[in-house]
Amino acid sequence: MAAGEVSSLEDCLEEHLPPAVLQHVWRMLYGKDTRKLDLPKSALTASLEKDFQLKGFGFEAAIEQLRQPRVVRVGLIQNKILLPTDSPVSEQVAALQKRIADIVEVAAMCGVNIVCLQEAWTMPFAFCTREKLPWTEFAESAEDGQTTRFCQELARKYNLVIVSPILERDEFHGDTLWNTAVVISNSGKVLGKTRKNHIPRVGDFNESTYYMEGNTGHKVFQTQFGRIAVNICFGRHHPLNWLMYSINGAEIIFNPCATVGALSEPMWPIEARNAAIANHCFTCGINRVGTEHFKNEFTSADGQKAHHEFGHFYGSSYVAAPDGSRTPGLSRIEDGLLVAELDLNLCRQINDKWAFKMTGRYELYADELAEAVQPNFDPYIVTE
Amino acid sequence: MAAGEVSSLEDCLEEHLPPAVLQHVWRMLYGKDTRKLDLPKSALTASLEKDFQLKGFGFEAAIEQLRQPRVVRVGLIQNKILLPTDSPVSEQVAALQKRIADIVEVAAMCGVNIVCLQEAWTMPFAFCTREKLPWTEFAESAEDGQTTRFCQELARKYNLVIVSPILERDEFHGDTLWNTAVVISNSGKVLGKTRKNHIPRVGDFNESTYYMEGNTGHKVFQTQFGRIAVNICFGRHHPLNWLMYSINGAEIIFNPCATVGALSEPMWPIEARNAAIANHCFTCGINRVGTEHFKNEFTSADGQKAHHEFGHFYGSSYVAAPDGSRTPGLSRIEDGLLVAELDLNLCRQINDKWAFKMTGRYELYADELAEAVQPNFDPYIVTE
Repeated sequence: MAAGEVSSLEDCLEEHLPPAVLQHVWRMLYGKDTRKLDLPKSALTASLEKDFQLKGFGFEAAIEQLRQPRVVRVGLIQNKILLPTDSPVSEQVAALQKRIADIVEVAAMCGVNIVCLQEAWTMPFAFCTREKLPWTEFAESAEDGQTTRFCQELARKYNLVIVSPILERDEFHGDTLWNTAVVISNSGKVLGKTRKNHIPRVGDFNESTYYMEGNTGHKVFQTQFGRIAVNICFGRHHPLNWLMYSINGAEIIFNPCATVGALSEPMWPIEARNAAIANHCFTCGINRVGTEHFKNEFTSADGQKAHHEFGHFYGSSYVAAPDGSRTPGLSRIEDGLLVAELDLNLCRQINDKWAFKMTGRYELYADELAEAVQPNFDPYIVTE
Repeated sequence: MAAGEVSSLEDCLEEHLPPAVLQHVWRMLYGKDTRKLDLPKSALTASLEKDFQLKGFGFEAAIEQLRQPRVVRVGLIQNKILLPTDSPVSEQVAALQKRIADIVEVAAMCGVNIVCLQEAWTMPFAFCTREKLPWTEFAESAEDGQTTRFCQELARKYNLVIVSPILERDEFHGDTLWNTAVVISNSGKVLGKTRKNHIPRVGDFNESTYYMEGNTGHKVFQTQFGRIAVNICFGRHHPLNWLMYSINGAEIIFNPCATVGALSEPMWPIEARNAAIANHCFTCGINRVGTEHFKNEFTSADGQKAHHEFGHFYGSSYVAAPDGSRTPGLSRIEDGLLVAELDLNLCRQINDKWAFKMTGRYELYADELAEAVQPNFDPYIVTE
């Protein structure tokens, strides 16, 4: 499936660079070193048995006098689908639930407080096909669908928050579909849902055939472990989307995605990381992994022959910190769990240091944007 | 001066990685390959004689039926100061002018149409000292200061546009100082000026002691070679600043900077590049190079001993394209001229492909930002 795919940028560099050079390269590329977490042996053994990558890194913050460190562990899960995409829908979902249950169990062993799954995690990313059935049968109620109930059980069992991005069916508003993340509290309650704000029309990302731009605004969820928000996939290309989550108080913004190599890979390390820097918060980019095969062929509006595969989902999930540093990425070809320990005090410390909010001049931009969207907008262009 | 400084990320990787691996690494890091420009031998010889790095890369766009390719060559110049910072002001300026005249001559040999110099290029970056004299004596009129006249002469001589970032003295508005870029047309006329919109208060960047946030908005300059804008230094951390230049129609946004390694280096490859991606335009990051020594010691508000140096300006100037690709960077330690050939048609081609403007929902953000700046703003936080 992944023929010719390299395992990761990090593997390429670590294999070939002398340690002294590697140290400079990491500093220039990834900033201040992240600390390797000492994960429990039982977790490492389980990850080997269950055949997924397990990595853990920690970010430091300065000690303050009046606030205790606010340490939280997040778990980013990237995975392949398990069954052929023409298997019965319920069997595909069940297989993915089993896989996720196994990985979340290991996350719990690692002391993870908040887990985020990949975009539309219960299904293949079938929107490339533009077919409706059977793919729309993967859609569920955000509030009481079986996937939400499955996550509630896990959340209660392990006392962790779960961000569960699904294809949502909203029965109460015209049976519409949405690309939605359900946030489930560690108490097991549904804390709420948030919808994908920006929908792509690029390459095979034909999602606008299925659902519209989200109408849930820039909601932030106060969990026991910190304030979180979810910027789903294509929203990562929109700096204003990240900004508004941050302005509403998000300390960690999860970015569950499904994106393929040929299209977006060079942008992947840039966008979520830029958002962490620009907004003084942590960001977590999660991308599915593997190549998905569809029985019926489809075309990609690029002049090439009809085909059965979307391309390679390159994983490479990572966490970026407000100080410009980041963890290494997970594999480009394997399932994985990335555990990151964050001291959320770092957000305000970096806010105080760099002060992008203080120097942001949002009044100016509110006015300029309001003008720019007027039909009679006259761009500010100086000519000779 | 640059003891212990590595020459560049690119050198580290090229020296140690086998070609096949290097190819994967470049693709993951820098996206689609840029073409090496075949620069004239006379230019290469002159750059060796004058002791600065000369590199050239080209970005491709698809051929269209109705528009001819709109090919433009930009030249990014990074340089050290030449004389000790306690030399007479006029001698320091004269030495820098001579250096720039030499480099611009080579840019002209390379067919460059638009040159951009580094931030406050006529002076050492003395704002760390918080002293007023002699540094404020480097300030000049944007419209008819001697530096502007110097650039006008070069512009006419070589038929190129020059972006000249200086410390401006505005005699007509209370003799105030500004951090300003003067844009000089290839005709030799002053096309206009644009001021730094966001002023840092971080580390030794004590610029807010000298000048205020710019009041020239997000002006775009229509030159014979394309529409350009100038986002000066700290503005690169503010995604809205880039966005508004782009909304006003900029196809190339120059980002002349002065920034040091310990503080910002891991952010450097992220921010201008993110802006090129997010705004479907080209961005040009230019950073001064070298370490500048000041006679009087100053402190950095970090508990360390008083000292005489700001830190190492790490150069690494680069051009980023709307398709996520970028050029390699110039050296971290040497003066340099980076020539990049851009087909501006790529901007609209990528706009049509990725459609971040079309999917940007600016009405929503204009409203949300307008609310967010109200004193009684109530962040959208969901609790259990």
